[in-house]
Amino acid sequence: MTTHTADHTDVRATNLAVVLRFLRTNAPCSRAAIAAGTGLNKATVTSIVGDLIDRRLTKETQQTQNHVGRPATLLVLDGSAYAAIGMEVSALGLTAIAYDSAGGQLLRWHRAGPGADASPAKTVAALAALARRAIAAVHSSGRDVLGLTVGVPGLVNRDGAVVLAAGLGWRDVELRKDLVAALSRPAFPVMVDNDANLGALAEHRYGPHAGSANLIQLSGDTGVGAGVICDGHPLRGNLGYAGEIGHLRIKPDGPLCGCGRRGCLEALAGIPAILARLDASDLPDADPQARTEQLVRRAEAGEVDTINMLTEVGTLLGQSVCVLANVLNPELVVLGGSYAALGRWLVPAVEKELIDGALAPEAGGCQVVVSTFGHDATSIGAVARSLDRFDSGRLPVNQTT
Amino acid sequence: MTTHTADHTDVRATNLAVVLRFLRTNAPCSRAAIAAGTGLNKATVTSIVGDLIDRRLTKETQQTQNHVGRPATLLVLDGSAYAAIGMEVSALGLTAIAYDSAGGQLLRWHRAGPGADASPAKTVAALAALARRAIAAVHSSGRDVLGLTVGVPGLVNRDGAVVLAAGLGWRDVELRKDLVAALSRPAFPVMVDNDANLGALAEHRYGPHAGSANLIQLSGDTGVGAGVICDGHPLRGNLGYAGEIGHLRIKPDGPLCGCGRRGCLEALAGIPAILARLDASDLPDADPQARTEQLVRRAEAGEVDTINMLTEVGTLLGQSVCVLANVLNPELVVLGGSYAALGRWLVPAVEKELIDGALAPEAGGCQVVVSTFGHDATSIGAVARSLDRFDSGRLPVNQTT
Repeated sequence: MTTHTADHTDVRATNLAVVLRFLRTNAPCSRAAIAAGTGLNKATVTSIVGDLIDRRLTKETQQTQNHVGRPATLLVLDGSAYAAIGMEVSALGLTAIAYDSAGGQLLRWHRAGPGADASPAKTVAALAALARRAIAAVHSSGRDVLGLTVGVPGLVNRDGAVVLAAGLGWRDVELRKDLVAALSRPAFPVMVDNDANLGALAEHRYGPHAGSANLIQLSGDTGVGAGVICDGHPLRGNLGYAGEIGHLRIKPDGPLCGCGRRGCLEALAGIPAILARLDASDLPDADPQARTEQLVRRAEAGEVDTINMLTEVGTLLGQSVCVLANVLNPELVVLGGSYAALGRWLVPAVEKELIDGALAPEAGGCQVVVSTFGHDATSIGAVARSLDRFDSGRLPVNQTT
Repeated sequence: MTTHTADHTDVRATNLAVVLRFLRTNAPCSRAAIAAGTGLNKATVTSIVGDLIDRRLTKETQQTQNHVGRPATLLVLDGSAYAAIGMEVSALGLTAIAYDSAGGQLLRWHRAGPGADASPAKTVAALAALARRAIAAVHSSGRDVLGLTVGVPGLVNRDGAVVLAAGLGWRDVELRKDLVAALSRPAFPVMVDNDANLGALAEHRYGPHAGSANLIQLSGDTGVGAGVICDGHPLRGNLGYAGEIGHLRIKPDGPLCGCGRRGCLEALAGIPAILARLDASDLPDADPQARTEQLVRRAEAGEVDTINMLTEVGTLLGQSVCVLANVLNPELVVLGGSYAALGRWLVPAVEKELIDGALAPEAGGCQVVVSTFGHDATSIGAVARSLDRFDSGRLPVNQTT
């Protein structure tokens, strides 16, 4: 029902984005290779590449390619002018990652958060301090910031406010607004998104199965959430709340959940719920990552109780994956965060539930894999989101920073 | 990850489609009104309207509009050249509907099917015979057929084969291929789609809430299915199987379902399951529509058992709607088919479950309404699907029929 019309500026933007995406996958390559690979004519490619070089998004290398005839100069992405920052707030702390526009990692910092009992304002202040340091580091590398995106484990509305993040104890936190103010209204876009949405974006852009048009990323470190890519696009829904599987009612008479209901997936199979079931006597501290590692060691040592518990968790996760398979028909479900570390024990149980429970033959072609991003998926996806404007052809113009 | 580039043909196609959509909503209107409403410049509008008039998709009326200055000739959609055919196969029988390209209904036929025990081949033959009659009727009205789409209550793959339709007793029926052969390879596209997908498309295009970007249509006459529109587009998933909510496991120890599992939504709250619970002694025949009407009469008469049963069904449906609300965050859930007729008793129970069970405050803004299309939603959506090529600017050229 849109009345969005097209004009020749759109054509230019679409084709700029096509050339950038082609370079991201295929560089170094010649103008002729770009023309052959994209279907654009050579004059258009020459003009677009000139534009990209002027904006310092592409550069010529010293390398040449010499098949038959004149040697062709090769092009690569230029990361010298711009970078994007991705951040995450979770029960594990604060993370900041920056990539330059050619995909080179500039920084990757992890900080303990101000603690689960801290007020949202205190966490936002710590996040803003970390953001300022990341921005300063990008600037001192001589680059402009293209954008900064923060991932949060909760419901994030389209204004970037966190409506509910039970695992952080947050309700109605105006995160985007507060962060923009704390950063003195920066010239670049500041965005806030759900952590699982960003995790799915990371898998879709940079994971081993990049490009899968229908994938779901599940993570369970704070709340349990699903990020969904459908037909190549992030699924958001009406207010931006899609993918909230943590509160599917798996056992009507199950344990009480932080949301006030009983038997939610999160209360049964979230990482905090799993860790709470561990005999903690031999655990030196309460750090969730250390405890997850301890859990892995116990399973590796063949401890029957631990393995049974993980199989049970896999079965519960599998029941939820089955719901997602019936509703969304994904080709790929990626277990992320701490679920990835536990994947060896979880995946077989998830697969069994999926094959038994999904209506479509062979679960509609759905595969279950583990993420290769560890705990960085959300931050990497946050970087990807800030780089999104490239893919829609909205290239940066000269900024004053 | 697409490398689809844009050229000036795309610009033309996009703008043709924009003008057609504008006319569909706003006709009769002048060229100046189209320019004002779409943002296209007047020369472009004049050229596009000329093209649309040449193709007999738009025509000038005798009416004029006279504000200030020269009178402006008004334009309307021209339905004289083309029509689209939508069909449905269900447990209730076969339906064929045809609309001309201006939205005028040309025919609406319903036939009893060959019966639940008939072979798929017999049903396909009956469907092809009805299709041939519909095509002949369109041709004798002087119109070309733009496309023919059939809705089926089951899993339809991207080749138009019905992988599974438990309510019809079908498995691996090559419906599109068989129909194309039975129609002697027609020049127009023949498509097959899931009934609920088409029902959702009907609501999205023509319903009282047309244009809602995130809506779900639920129907339960044969199987229970959901058609999903996300961000304005039909949700299909990897192999085209999205929206299969009929086999969500609602009660692990519930009744046996046609799929071989226990406690599926379909086995508990599908219309056949509801009708099977009725005391049938005062029902003159086994026709499902007659029995549904009887059910409505009993509820209207205040029969406590009937009302309690419908409330229970509404609660079960509500639990599933709640899953959909958490996963998809729709703004609208439309109860279709026979659920619409029972809406007065079902909706309050669905709403209660939704508000209690959805994580997002106020169920993420989700409203529950009943369809106004009765049993025609699938066929109307099938017509809409055949008209889709208009919306993407692929206009018909002169056909030989």
